[in-house]
Amino acid sequence: MQRVQEVHEVMDFSKLDGLIPAVVQDHVSGEVLMVGFMNQEAWDVTRQTGYVTFFSRTRNTLWTKGETSGNRLAVRDVLIDCDDDTVLVKAERLGDGNVCHTGERTCFFRRAEGVTVP
Amino acid sequence: MQRVQEVHEVMDFSKLDGLIPAVVQDHVSGEVLMVGFMNQEAWDVTRQTGYVTFFSRTRNTLWTKGETSGNRLAVRDVLIDCDDDTVLVKAERLGDGNVCHTGERTCFFRRAEGVTVP
Repeated sequence: MQRVQEVHEVMDFSKLDGLIPAVVQDHVSGEVLMVGFMNQEAWDVTRQTGYVTFFSRTRNTLWTKGETSGNRLAVRDVLIDCDDDTVLVKAERLGDGNVCHTGERTCFFRRAEGVTVP
Repeated sequence: MQRVQEVHEVMDFSKLDGLIPAVVQDHVSGEVLMVGFMNQEAWDVTRQTGYVTFFSRTRNTLWTKGETSGNRLAVRDVLIDCDDDTVLVKAERLGDGNVCHTGERTCFFRRAEGVTVP
């Protein structure tokens, strides 16, 4: 069994100029849906509201996933990695459940060619 | 059903100063094990050898996960996200299967406190 400690951890935003990667995983299927970045404010907003919120590097602003499409991601669990610089958000897909802006269920819908499998 | 296209994609290393995040997921359980970064060379080495290889930002060098511990990560599948700046590696845990340097099975073994669950 995996033991899980509950911690109040201060995340380390120093390694990526104020950002941490946030992996979003479907809380039931375990499918990895997308990866975005959070700054301190996005991290705080995500925890306070329970809806996954990122920092957009291109638009230089916070964005709550699904704020336009309605396909928000409702937080079900949040795990922190061993060195406090990455988070794993287990979430429920709201709306039509299509997470990717292309209309796919997940942003990871393409397979890399020519990979050696040992 | 999720359709998966097979693609030969050139990854976009421009957004993070030559790096892309790489999420490693257990190929059977779906557990997210760790997140590291790859530069072009680490990405090439990972695909060519079939063993997950990162770029260490602190040591400024490539490192193949498990090269010291023996707990290598054997690639089973590689997916690319919609905008070519993140990869998802489904892998088999070799050695004793403990991925984290702390000896835990996964780097995500702690839960964030005080999270609102809507």
